[in-house]
Amino acid sequence: MKKHNFSAGPCILPQEVFQKASQAVLNLDDSGLSILEISHRSKAFVEIMEKAQDLALEHLKLPKEEYQILFLQGGASMQFIMSAFNLMQTKAAYLDTGSWSAKAIKEAKLLGEVNVLASSKDKNYNYIPKNFQVPTDVDYFHCTSNNTIFGTQIKDFPKANVPVVCDMSSDIFSREIDFSYFDVIYAGAQKNMGPAGATLVAVKKSCLGKVDRKIPSMLDYQVHCGKDSMFNTPPVFPVYVSMLTLEWLKEQGGVKAIEAKNKMKADAMYLEIDRNPLFTGFAEKEDRSDMNATFNLKDEALKSKFESLLVEAGVNGLNGHRSVGGYRASMYNALPFESVQVVIEAMQELEKNA
Amino acid sequence: MKKHNFSAGPCILPQEVFQKASQAVLNLDDSGLSILEISHRSKAFVEIMEKAQDLALEHLKLPKEEYQILFLQGGASMQFIMSAFNLMQTKAAYLDTGSWSAKAIKEAKLLGEVNVLASSKDKNYNYIPKNFQVPTDVDYFHCTSNNTIFGTQIKDFPKANVPVVCDMSSDIFSREIDFSYFDVIYAGAQKNMGPAGATLVAVKKSCLGKVDRKIPSMLDYQVHCGKDSMFNTPPVFPVYVSMLTLEWLKEQGGVKAIEAKNKMKADAMYLEIDRNPLFTGFAEKEDRSDMNATFNLKDEALKSKFESLLVEAGVNGLNGHRSVGGYRASMYNALPFESVQVVIEAMQELEKNA
Repeated sequence: MKKHNFSAGPCILPQEVFQKASQAVLNLDDSGLSILEISHRSKAFVEIMEKAQDLALEHLKLPKEEYQILFLQGGASMQFIMSAFNLMQTKAAYLDTGSWSAKAIKEAKLLGEVNVLASSKDKNYNYIPKNFQVPTDVDYFHCTSNNTIFGTQIKDFPKANVPVVCDMSSDIFSREIDFSYFDVIYAGAQKNMGPAGATLVAVKKSCLGKVDRKIPSMLDYQVHCGKDSMFNTPPVFPVYVSMLTLEWLKEQGGVKAIEAKNKMKADAMYLEIDRNPLFTGFAEKEDRSDMNATFNLKDEALKSKFESLLVEAGVNGLNGHRSVGGYRASMYNALPFESVQVVIEAMQELEKNA
Repeated sequence: MKKHNFSAGPCILPQEVFQKASQAVLNLDDSGLSILEISHRSKAFVEIMEKAQDLALEHLKLPKEEYQILFLQGGASMQFIMSAFNLMQTKAAYLDTGSWSAKAIKEAKLLGEVNVLASSKDKNYNYIPKNFQVPTDVDYFHCTSNNTIFGTQIKDFPKANVPVVCDMSSDIFSREIDFSYFDVIYAGAQKNMGPAGATLVAVKKSCLGKVDRKIPSMLDYQVHCGKDSMFNTPPVFPVYVSMLTLEWLKEQGGVKAIEAKNKMKADAMYLEIDRNPLFTGFAEKEDRSDMNATFNLKDEALKSKFESLLVEAGVNGLNGHRSVGGYRASMYNALPFESVQVVIEAMQELEKNA
C-alpha cells in the first residue's frame, strides 16, 4: 500500500518523478547509461543542470541577467555560514523565528556582529514577530520564510533598504511572492524541490564582491557563479530529480496553481484542527504555515488511540518535532488532497469514539 | 546497448547496484515509500547510514574505537578547506602531484603556512616525487593517493611522524594499504563508492580538537562526529547507493579480491599501450595508476579513425583530460574486464588498418 507521507523533509515528491527517476537510474533517456554513471561534464548532464536552473528562475520570476541559480551541497546549514562569508563585512540583522534562524545566527556570529531585531523564542516560536524595523547600517537582513518545526510562516516581509537573505528551505515554490525582494534565497532541496543532497541558491550578482575577507573557494558564491554551478562535481542525481520536480510543477500550472492547491489543503487541515474539540493548534492563527500545520491533542491519554488510527490509515511522518510535540502535518506541493482528508477522517474517527 | 563506461567520475557502478537503487526509488524494501521521500531520522535510513559506516570501516580495516566514518557533502573540494580548518594550527606540509593537490594547497594557504615538500609539476605531473622527507615541525602532511587526471598513483607512502591527511577520491577501496597510516582519509564517492553527492571521511578522533580557531559547525569534524554524521540532513540517496556498492564489494571478496581484478585490468591495458606501436603511455611506468591509464596516439592523424572505432564498440568516456590530451581508461572497481578487452581490440584494429 502506498503511504500518505507527511514527513517534514526529506518528504513526498510527485509519483511521476519517482517513476522517471527510477527509470533513469537504469537507463537515462535511452543512452545506455545510468544517470548515476554519467560525467557531470557530459552533454546530457550539462543540459539537465541548465534546464533545472532555467526552470527555477522561471518559477521564481527572476531575471537571468541579475540572478544566478546555483545547485550546491550541504543544505541550509552550510548556507548559514556561506551567506555570512559572502555578505558580512561587519554587521548583519537577523530575525529569530525558530531553531533554524537561531542556528543561522550562531554561525554568522563567527564572522561579525549580529543584531537580532526580534525573536519569538519567548513563546517557543509559535508566532512571527512583527513590530521591528530593518536598520540601514547593516550589511544585510536575514530571515527564515517558513519555520518547519513550529509551523509558522512570514506572510509579509518587512521593508528593507539593505540586501535581504532568506532561508526558504520549507516553502520555496509553494506560493507566489515577489522573489526579487531578496538578494540571496537558499533552500535545501528536500521539501518542495527534490531529494536530500542538493541546495538551491538564487543569488543577485550585484550584491557580491563587497567584503574584504578571503573566502574559501567552495564557500564563495562568485566562484560558483563564475563556473555556472559546475566549479566541482555537483550532486548529479539530486539535481536531476530537482529538475524533474520543477518540470512537474510547470505542468501543474506553476507556483500560482500549486499555491491554490496548497491553500485548499491547509484550509481543510486548520478547519478541522479548530473545529475538533480534541485538538488544539500550536501556532498563532495569523502566522500559520500553509506547509506545516502543528497541532496537539488536548488530552494526551488519547495519543495511542489516535496513532493507531493513523497507522491503520497508512499515514507516515505525522509526529511533531520533539521541541513542539504533538503532530505536524507537512503538506508540501506533492502531497495530494486525499492524504489530508485521510488525516482529517482519523481525527473525526477519534472524536466519535473518544 | 549497454555502454563500456570509462568515465573518470562520476563513473560506472555495479549493475546490481543500479537495479537495487532503481527499485528503491519506487519502493524501498517494500515499505510503500521511495528512498527519496523517507526522513533521514527514520529507522530505515538510520540503519542504512550505520551499515554504510560499518562496511567502510570493515573494508578499510580501521578500528571503530579510533576512527569515525562521516558521509558529508561538497566533495574533495570541500575537504581541501575542511581538513585545514580542523588540523592546521600554523604550518602544514603538502605533496604536489597534480591539479587536485594544487587546489588543496591553494585552499590550505588561506589558513596557514604551506610547505610544498616536492612537486612533479615540472613534467606536467607525469610522475610521483620520491626524494623528500616529511618534516616533524608541521601540523600534518597532505597527499593525493591517485591522480585521476595524470594517471599516477602513490605506491609507497613516505614515513611520517605527524598526522597524515590523504585525498583518496579516485582509488579508495581499490587496493589494500595500511589505512591506519592515515589520520584523515577523504574521498568523493563518485569513483569507487557511489554516485556524486556524498563524500566519505574517515577521521582518527585523536587528531581532532588541537587547533585554536573557531570552526564553522558544518566544517567541524568534531561536530559531525558528535552527531554520528547526522548533524544535518545527509545526502540520503547517495549514501544509500554507497551502502549498496560497499555491500557489493564485500560480496566480491572485499578490497583484496577487487585489487587482484583491478591489477589484471591495468596490466592488460598497459601491456597493450606498451606493445602497440601507435600509442605511448603518459605516466612514468613505476608510478602508473591502476585506476586511470593515460595514453596518447603517436600520430594525431589517426585520432578520428580511432575514435570511430571506439564509438562503434560502444566505448564511453575514454577521452583524456584537456591538460593531458589523448586518452584515459578509468578502470574503477565496477568496470568489467570485458570493457578493457573491447578497448584493446579497438587499439589492435587501428594498428591493423593504420
